[in-house]
Amino acid sequence: MHLLVTGAAGFIGSHTVLELLQSGYTVLCIDNFANAISVTDEHGNAISLKRVAQITGKEVPFQNVDVCDEKALEKVFSENKFDGVIHLAALKAVGESVAKPLQYYSNNLVASLNLIQMCLKYNVKNFVFSSSATVYGPPSELPITEKSQTGQGITNPYGQTKYMMEQILIDVGKANPEWNVILLRYFNPVGAHKSGLIGEDPKGVPNNLMPYVSQVAIGKLPVLTIYGDKFDTVDGTGVRDYIHVVDLAKGHVKAFDRIKAVGNVGTEIYNLGTGVGYSVRQMVDALKKVSGRDIPVKIGVPRPGDVASVYCDPSLAHEKLGWRAENGLEEMCADLWNWQTKNPQGFSSV
Amino acid sequence: MHLLVTGAAGFIGSHTVLELLQSGYTVLCIDNFANAISVTDEHGNAISLKRVAQITGKEVPFQNVDVCDEKALEKVFSENKFDGVIHLAALKAVGESVAKPLQYYSNNLVASLNLIQMCLKYNVKNFVFSSSATVYGPPSELPITEKSQTGQGITNPYGQTKYMMEQILIDVGKANPEWNVILLRYFNPVGAHKSGLIGEDPKGVPNNLMPYVSQVAIGKLPVLTIYGDKFDTVDGTGVRDYIHVVDLAKGHVKAFDRIKAVGNVGTEIYNLGTGVGYSVRQMVDALKKVSGRDIPVKIGVPRPGDVASVYCDPSLAHEKLGWRAENGLEEMCADLWNWQTKNPQGFSSV
Repeated sequence: MHLLVTGAAGFIGSHTVLELLQSGYTVLCIDNFANAISVTDEHGNAISLKRVAQITGKEVPFQNVDVCDEKALEKVFSENKFDGVIHLAALKAVGESVAKPLQYYSNNLVASLNLIQMCLKYNVKNFVFSSSATVYGPPSELPITEKSQTGQGITNPYGQTKYMMEQILIDVGKANPEWNVILLRYFNPVGAHKSGLIGEDPKGVPNNLMPYVSQVAIGKLPVLTIYGDKFDTVDGTGVRDYIHVVDLAKGHVKAFDRIKAVGNVGTEIYNLGTGVGYSVRQMVDALKKVSGRDIPVKIGVPRPGDVASVYCDPSLAHEKLGWRAENGLEEMCADLWNWQTKNPQGFSSV
Repeated sequence: MHLLVTGAAGFIGSHTVLELLQSGYTVLCIDNFANAISVTDEHGNAISLKRVAQITGKEVPFQNVDVCDEKALEKVFSENKFDGVIHLAALKAVGESVAKPLQYYSNNLVASLNLIQMCLKYNVKNFVFSSSATVYGPPSELPITEKSQTGQGITNPYGQTKYMMEQILIDVGKANPEWNVILLRYFNPVGAHKSGLIGEDPKGVPNNLMPYVSQVAIGKLPVLTIYGDKFDTVDGTGVRDYIHVVDLAKGHVKAFDRIKAVGNVGTEIYNLGTGVGYSVRQMVDALKKVSGRDIPVKIGVPRPGDVASVYCDPSLAHEKLGWRAENGLEEMCADLWNWQTKNPQGFSSV
């Protein structure tokens, strides 16, 4: 199968492309680097995807295309014949989305609407979408299953765009029963490829815990603020379901494997997490152990919308996709640290 | 205040423009006639708005503009100075939205995103949005208040677009505290202006009950199908909160009156309904009475998503806007029948 991957140069994109190539899929990668700086070489190519080519020994075709640019996107569809798309492209900074909601809604919704329109026009019926645990809002039950309530109490426009895109794709799937729509709800992706050649390279100060922790460990940032240590959890700090990015990437491969094997699956939704929650302190301690570095922390107040615990039941993905997270806390931290030390300035280290 | 009204030539739009003009507001009307056929004269002007000019004795400036057309919309903003917008333009056929979800999401979301973008760019801070009782989904409680749950169980893309637009406007309001965002949740608008010069002119077979009933009464349609007569209501048929369109139109005037009086109100949400529910049979009987016509009915099965009763608590609008529906069932039916008999083919009767 030949797949279009949007947002392919990013953290999840690059790992997903790698796993797809290693499983025999071919891809066209597109990205516009909206979430990144300095991650292209002097020819405008994505360094992350050049690394993927280096690891896999395969070609990784790439085009710099903004999915919001309808004409540019149509050119991609008219010049290629895709069997499916994996739609990862999105603005994703939670805090920024609160300050600039229109930018987030416009970018994320219009990109997705354009992509669906092209799929309808060019008869591409297999659509895998990068959704998020954020669609559940504050969990109504634990563990979170795919049947748990969504759409209530989502505290930021970024999360709302993911929820809205799910709804739009569900309705498009209903109206086009020959389509396969697979919504993958990511929990908290961390870690990096074992090679240390690709990993997360956040723009500016990291928004997510583990990139922040590893930048504190390596001395780029002075101290980690833990937002709240009075939650009802093992040690008072917030518990989340972290998942190794390579496991997450493999979930996308399994989604297309299922479409290949079954044919018309319709619309399906899967949680991609380990099902095990770790606290902030447990994550920090684990990185401390693998890095041998000191990680200073201070305690801050919980942020609006922060909840004690979020973790999923990933058994549906195991049952239907034959997918299960293989890496635990130690691999997540070891691989993150390997990437961080080999690339202290991310892809700009080159 | 000078207001931009989108979707101005439609049923709610034309009545709203009329009430605005009679209350001393000036307007620029735009519409692209997406929901209508044959409602322009030979110069491309909206017949409904020419009638408004006739009734009010005032000029009703009109431009044929698609709000989805960013350049055309920007021209409108660059050539005019607005104090606020009333955003009514939307595709609105529930059944069609299920069959063509992408068209509904693209049109309704992109139009609204464009309009918000122009308001931000041209510093227009007062935004009144045409929302709908549909955002509540199947009611979690009766009467429905503005604090009742929204977003769960909405059964069609049309309703989803209204819900999503509310969410987007709420987030834009949060990020821009100097904005006033007023979301008006319409219940079931019916009736027509007393003059009989403007009214509802649905394209094709009516989707809503009362235009259907009046077309049966006048002989354009043979029989009314009542979808379900075993609901737990006064007579087994579904109960809804019908509101006279002139009352609804006045709600928009009151929203701007409040902004003029108070200044910065932030984001506010109001139910616009009478608070009284009538059953399908009660509505049919009332129209039968005013028209003196026979209205044949047959009983069908309930449609997916149909519920027994929906009616609101409109007291917040009374308290804050000083607004209350003044017309009851009899006026709704009498004014509808007056419009129907004077314009048996709608605006095409001219």
